[in-house]
Amino acid sequence: MVFMKKVKIAYLGGGSRGWAWYLMSDLAMEKSFTPEVYLYDIDKEAAKANEIIGNRIPEDCPDANPVTYKAAETIEEALTDADFVVISILPGTFTEMGSDVHTPEKYGIYQSVGDTTGPGGIIRALRTLPMMEYFALKIKECCPRAWVINYTNPMTLSIGMLYRTFPEIKAFGCCHEVFFTRDLLGEAAKEILGIEEEITRDDIRVNVMGINHFTWLDKANYKGIDLFPVYRKFCEKYVKTGTFKEEKYDYLKAFSNGNCIKMDLFLRYGTIAAAGDRHLAEFCPGNWYLKDLETVAEWKFALTPIQYRIDGLKDRLAKSKRLVNREEKFELVPSGEEGVLQMKALLGLEDLVTNVNLPNVGQIPNLPLGAVVETNAAFTCDSVLPVVAGSMPDGPLGLTMPHVTNQQLILDAVQNRDLETAFMAFAKDPLVRIGLSDTRKLFNEMIENTKEYLEDYK
Amino acid sequence: MVFMKKVKIAYLGGGSRGWAWYLMSDLAMEKSFTPEVYLYDIDKEAAKANEIIGNRIPEDCPDANPVTYKAAETIEEALTDADFVVISILPGTFTEMGSDVHTPEKYGIYQSVGDTTGPGGIIRALRTLPMMEYFALKIKECCPRAWVINYTNPMTLSIGMLYRTFPEIKAFGCCHEVFFTRDLLGEAAKEILGIEEEITRDDIRVNVMGINHFTWLDKANYKGIDLFPVYRKFCEKYVKTGTFKEEKYDYLKAFSNGNCIKMDLFLRYGTIAAAGDRHLAEFCPGNWYLKDLETVAEWKFALTPIQYRIDGLKDRLAKSKRLVNREEKFELVPSGEEGVLQMKALLGLEDLVTNVNLPNVGQIPNLPLGAVVETNAAFTCDSVLPVVAGSMPDGPLGLTMPHVTNQQLILDAVQNRDLETAFMAFAKDPLVRIGLSDTRKLFNEMIENTKEYLEDYK
Amino acid sequence: MVFMKKVKIAYLGGGSRGWAWYLMSDLAMEKSFTPEVYLYDIDKEAAKANEIIGNRIPEDCPDANPVTYKAAETIEEALTDADFVVISILPGTFTEMGSDVHTPEKYGIYQSVGDTTGPGGIIRALRTLPMMEYFALKIKECCPRAWVINYTNPMTLSIGMLYRTFPEIKAFGCCHEVFFTRDLLGEAAKEILGIEEEITRDDIRVNVMGINHFTWLDKANYKGIDLFPVYRKFCEKYVKTGTFKEEKYDYLKAFSNGNCIKMDLFLRYGTIAAAGDRHLAEFCPGNWYLKDLETVAEWKFALTPIQYRIDGLKDRLAKSKRLVNREEKFELVPSGEEGVLQMKALLGLEDLVTNVNLPNVGQIPNLPLGAVVETNAAFTCDSVLPVVAGSMPDGPLGLTMPHVTNQQLILDAVQNRDLETAFMAFAKDPLVRIGLSDTRKLFNEMIENTKEYLEDYK
Amino acid sequence: MVFMKKVKIAYLGGGSRGWAWYLMSDLAMEKSFTPEVYLYDIDKEAAKANEIIGNRIPEDCPDANPVTYKAAETIEEALTDADFVVISILPGTFTEMGSDVHTPEKYGIYQSVGDTTGPGGIIRALRTLPMMEYFALKIKECCPRAWVINYTNPMTLSIGMLYRTFPEIKAFGCCHEVFFTRDLLGEAAKEILGIEEEITRDDIRVNVMGINHFTWLDKANYKGIDLFPVYRKFCEKYVKTGTFKEEKYDYLKAFSNGNCIKMDLFLRYGTIAAAGDRHLAEFCPGNWYLKDLETVAEWKFALTPIQYRIDGLKDRLAKSKRLVNREEKFELVPSGEEGVLQMKALLGLEDLVTNVNLPNVGQIPNLPLGAVVETNAAFTCDSVLPVVAGSMPDGPLGLTMPHVTNQQLILDAVQNRDLETAFMAFAKDPLVRIGLSDTRKLFNEMIENTKEYLEDYK
Repeated sequence: MVFMKKVKIAYLGGGSRGWAWYLMSDLAMEKSFTPEVYLYDIDKEAAKANEIIGNRIPEDCPDANPVTYKAAETIEEALTDADFVVISILPGTFTEMGSDVHTPEKYGIYQSVGDTTGPGGIIRALRTLPMMEYFALKIKECCPRAWVINYTNPMTLSIGMLYRTFPEIKAFGCCHEVFFTRDLLGEAAKEILGIEEEITRDDIRVNVMGINHFTWLDKANYKGIDLFPVYRKFCEKYVKTGTFKEEKYDYLKAFSNGNCIKMDLFLRYGTIAAAGDRHLAEFCPGNWYLKDLETVAEWKFALTPIQYRIDGLKDRLAKSKRLVNREEKFELVPSGEEGVLQMKALLGLEDLVTNVNLPNVGQIPNLPLGAVVETNAAFTCDSVLPVVAGSMPDGPLGLTMPHVTNQQLILDAVQNRDLETAFMAFAKDPLVRIGLSDTRKLFNEMIENTKEYLEDYK
Repeated sequence: MVFMKKVKIAYLGGGSRGWAWYLMSDLAMEKSFTPEVYLYDIDKEAAKANEIIGNRIPEDCPDANPVTYKAAETIEEALTDADFVVISILPGTFTEMGSDVHTPEKYGIYQSVGDTTGPGGIIRALRTLPMMEYFALKIKECCPRAWVINYTNPMTLSIGMLYRTFPEIKAFGCCHEVFFTRDLLGEAAKEILGIEEEITRDDIRVNVMGINHFTWLDKANYKGIDLFPVYRKFCEKYVKTGTFKEEKYDYLKAFSNGNCIKMDLFLRYGTIAAAGDRHLAEFCPGNWYLKDLETVAEWKFALTPIQYRIDGLKDRLAKSKRLVNREEKFELVPSGEEGVLQMKALLGLEDLVTNVNLPNVGQIPNLPLGAVVETNAAFTCDSVLPVVAGSMPDGPLGLTMPHVTNQQLILDAVQNRDLETAFMAFAKDPLVRIGLSDTRKLFNEMIENTKEYLEDYK
Repeated sequence: MVFMKKVKIAYLGGGSRGWAWYLMSDLAMEKSFTPEVYLYDIDKEAAKANEIIGNRIPEDCPDANPVTYKAAETIEEALTDADFVVISILPGTFTEMGSDVHTPEKYGIYQSVGDTTGPGGIIRALRTLPMMEYFALKIKECCPRAWVINYTNPMTLSIGMLYRTFPEIKAFGCCHEVFFTRDLLGEAAKEILGIEEEITRDDIRVNVMGINHFTWLDKANYKGIDLFPVYRKFCEKYVKTGTFKEEKYDYLKAFSNGNCIKMDLFLRYGTIAAAGDRHLAEFCPGNWYLKDLETVAEWKFALTPIQYRIDGLKDRLAKSKRLVNREEKFELVPSGEEGVLQMKALLGLEDLVTNVNLPNVGQIPNLPLGAVVETNAAFTCDSVLPVVAGSMPDGPLGLTMPHVTNQQLILDAVQNRDLETAFMAFAKDPLVRIGLSDTRKLFNEMIENTKEYLEDYK
Repeated sequence: MVFMKKVKIAYLGGGSRGWAWYLMSDLAMEKSFTPEVYLYDIDKEAAKANEIIGNRIPEDCPDANPVTYKAAETIEEALTDADFVVISILPGTFTEMGSDVHTPEKYGIYQSVGDTTGPGGIIRALRTLPMMEYFALKIKECCPRAWVINYTNPMTLSIGMLYRTFPEIKAFGCCHEVFFTRDLLGEAAKEILGIEEEITRDDIRVNVMGINHFTWLDKANYKGIDLFPVYRKFCEKYVKTGTFKEEKYDYLKAFSNGNCIKMDLFLRYGTIAAAGDRHLAEFCPGNWYLKDLETVAEWKFALTPIQYRIDGLKDRLAKSKRLVNREEKFELVPSGEEGVLQMKALLGLEDLVTNVNLPNVGQIPNLPLGAVVETNAAFTCDSVLPVVAGSMPDGPLGLTMPHVTNQQLILDAVQNRDLETAFMAFAKDPLVRIGLSDTRKLFNEMIENTKEYLEDYK
């Protein structure tokens, strides 16, 4: 990475109508470097549309950093000599994702997200990870020294696959779930301590440990104040009712939740669970929060149906058309993501410590070496090094280890394209509690629904 | 330990009508050393009866090694300057054990043994481990350099507690489950390879890894022949029908089983599960083999009701009376246990390699250091050192780790006498799949049933 | 640590005429917090003088942060409820230090510093570490949650002793040697790359690994430019002549050196040695750079005679008198040290990543766990967590490990007050190459010269 | 390895006139299996001579096991489908070995053996390890599942190179040095305890840890008696005079020694050094025992001159001729080596625990994983698994680690055929204490003397 030359970013999944626009917005507002962004997507038209949208930003926003965008014809064109690679793809279509999320319901297994763990996450991994393998090989070929930032789920497994395929890759994965928990801790501090002044997430210092979407905090401070007793009071107050404000809990609002699971886990385990309730629920024993729809209602969170995502995409497609046709102006709004700050740090411009997903080299001594974990890391010039988070407490550790070992099995399954190894993991996922023969039926049905993407497997 | 002086054995639980007689029999047949055995039991009469029985052996069996037995008044009398301590106790009474095994059935949770893991094993641990803590403190005081051999269940947790309390203790735990699997491998070798000559378990060499009652073999040989392909054929043949011979599978015969679970686990995971089916079932996800009584019948194993044990004890009590009253002669039968061989090795008389339960100092690199594990160990003069077993394969590892982490929680719970920590483990035991509020009810009910032994807990 | 209340700093060795003034200066220029500093010293007058000097700063420098200073009567007064403890002492007097440095010369062993390793460093440790043990016990008693910042040499061993005595202590050690190497890398960048603009040490990002005064960098960047090839050219150019500028190499100028050793080590081992040459020389095999005075001259560095330090102190004593008597104004000059920035970070005011000395919890995977090492660490609210530095390359590792194992022996020796264990280390120090019987003589002579401080030892 | 078929042994270096005959003798006396031995040697005539000698054994010794011998034309013929591979070669000729041992003397560096460590051992490694690399590749090709038994020095590095080249190799290294120490402990027991009955080495149980030729015992027992206090008395008695019996210490008798170094190390470090004094001396700081010839005489051991080995070979060549020409009968004498017992155990015939050299998988937790170490291991059917030896005490650890790290550097140097990396190790070997420029000269001279075997290096 030579800073003197123009910085090149390759965006795999560059036709995206969500993350791509966030990145555009953040890059337009950051002035310290002005990259060229190559957008690569198997949907070429989508990439082309984003090229148009991105290049027009300076017209709509005169103050913006004049970043240039280019739809790449081939992945090689995008990647060659890139300094950064951003990966943000939808693996397969909403048809397969629909099966991930809803097929298990026939067997009484409910999932709130279905993209990370559980039956849905596992099947999604089986079709996503070969793509990651392909990306890793292409990166090895075209830009082996580039920094690779992944946003695709399943996060832990995607990062795991990149490193299994090309161990020298400089990849990490980003996720905003911990940020929201820091917001919540800020709210708790304000309310319980009666603080008037604004508290931003940056004021809340935390130590992060665990795996993506199942992260835990064993330390949280606000200006020298230990937030653990503060948060305990807050949880005792709200664990039953939830933390809803104006909005009421609405079963049908797909992302709605009252943090009840987060608070229950803290009250029972004494360590702060730091992801959204919809994610946390899926990592716990299936009978805790996802036993049936009544239990879901009782814990005041929502299952996100696939139709919700389909509708969302429809809206964004329409917006894309309007932006391309200049019927709508591009608006600069900070995304709240840190991708651009991370690039800045890696360019040697301003150091940063933040939480990311990386292989464990000892930052969590009681998780296996090599397993992908989420902790804080120090970003500096051409370097991302994990901060030692320390050992996980036994309670969270016990909930986490079944997933860590399942993740190893799934990586084995993908590397060897062997469905039987995947079934080893599937059958012992904590959400799957339906007897061995039904488990086998469910697995086969989900595989059948995804078969277009699983041709290589035996 | 000085060999020149008379060897002293302290037997805690020395009133036992099972293990104590096995030991007497084995000691009577071994001639290389002639110890004094001090029998200590809170049931003083029982210890006294065994003193009488033991001391009369030379009369009944003129060839026997003239070991002497003495019922000790106090634990200190038994332990002071002992060279070996044998621990084999029934923690609590059959009333508590009845609750361990059967209370969960009200909630739809079936257990085949209920003394190692699952709700029963956990509650049993809560009352057993304070006794182990007491023994460890007494051993530290009276005979800190003695070798301590435990036979009490839950084995892993008992050994764990001894080491937590007195880290310099020289304790290990013995169990015969792996021996039976070696017998089964011998049968498989005879049948599949058409071998005519007798095969004993000693002809079958295995590498052992895992935790007690959930042990696995990743190597098995018979005179240079790799038994894995042999056993695979055997399992494919018998996994549905079971390996029953004359006896038929009888649901009511409490220890009956056809090895179907052992064979299913091998066929699905590729590593040999090496404990009885009744034990294996309890470590797996609850819906696999113990979902309901139909599933139990389908897998052709039995649940052991407490009445079975009560009846068994009645028989043994009668036998004890007959032996004391000289209405029956003591018969010398090799027990098949290795306790006496282990003592012989520790006295420097004949080296031995066998499987035992010890804290992990790296013999299984991918289980946590300090966790009690079962592997082979080399016994020699005043020394038991584990043989490196290697890393567990991901499949068995994933099934094992939830238990290892639960065991840490239970040790914490006992050390701090804190039921809430025990509940952390209880709620995520794989047999417990009944929703959080029922889980809490079950836990409270089982605690209530055991309360006489749990007074210290908060 | 509650930020709302006044911050209290305890300064052990608070009569110092060097480090104490640096701290005063830095605190006066930092405005974000205004602590009370308690100065404790066995030389009460010296502490009193510094109280006067410190409290007068606001008069001399109207803009200064109005920090208050107080000479403490007892160590308990200084420590009770302290938020920070600074340790910066001279262990013993210049008489003992004179023996440390010069007695070995009689046997042909030359030392450039004599306070860290080698015969001098080892004997110094024997008298320093019991003081550290005492401090740790007092801190445990008076302010167990305080952050402890040590500047005393031998650094690694001092930190090691604090943790051995009170494992929950929150202590770290600071040293500026790496800063100077970053300055040198900046110079190299300017010269070799022809950069005109100023480069400060903050522009040079490095990854730090090793032990104090024998630290190594396996990464160094300037704004995205890898400095390794740059520094190689620089070293090839200057390794023979040294990097002297106006000043010429002068054998008698005690701190003078031309970085020749640093450059030789880089050219031979490919990793950047990052401490002053006088320190580096003492860690290497004795025949490399300290074989005799000709070799020292050849490598263009200087031995620091004790007289030099005595003269220096005389000057500083005079200055102290002038400051107390108001014959000289206190001048605010940034010390270049980071102690105050570290306090600020620990108070939750501004995060910091910098290199410090801490027990290894895995930040350097191929050094022993628990050994005190120097790497970068992330400072944030009430938290210092090491950044994973990665494994040391085999060359530097091989030079470092003899010292790490010697340090364990010396800690054992001090804990048990056992000189024979100290001799185990002494005899295999790489500077000691004079035959076993002379080694024993030298050891005894140095012990005799220090005996006033070694009464406890057997 | 299938036991039913004929066992095949490939002997690389099969023309040997020492080890080969030992093996022949041991195989002739063992009756449980009757292998075919393929002798491969670059000296074809020598292999042919041994074929003749071996095949005639049954004539001379009618009771002998009728093992067959065959001189192989190619290494492939020897290795293909071998069950065991024995490696016992002389790397290079006595010319190179002469340079290894004697060239350093010109610079004042004395070596007692010169084949394991020190300048001689390092240069010997540079020419030996490429041969080991070649063997490992051939084994991978021709008999990847064979068990490989190495006797060649440098042992640790040879085993290290086999594993670096073919990580799945099943190789271990054997050495008899520890046996002799067990003999010495037996003598000490007899003398100090006044025991009349014979004590053999098998009666002495020890725990072994360290690296080949620098092994240590932290436990030693004889029938339940701890031998540490016994050996201490013995050492105090003999450390000055040596343990010579009939024979007097004779400086010129090349293998003569009085165990003075072994005893000095025990008295100073409290752990039993368990190799011959000639080997131990070379691993210690050069000034301890090998400072000059006076020091050697003072410690009563001998340097083995190359002429001694040349003369020895001459005798053995003559003997070979006599055996081939039937002028002398082959005599069956047990070699005292365990190679044949190890084969027997690996064939599943009789288990064995003995000390061997293997990569560290945790058997010595405080030596680096992967480094080749010497500890006890359990041999059973097709399996050699190390027994956990425990951590090395700090004293021996500190003496050992410089060698372990040097060995990593030498393996790197050979893998990359890079002399500069070898020099990194060479310059910090503890025997080399002659200043950097002389060190460079010595290195270059020794390389020049060995250049015929170092053509690949840069």
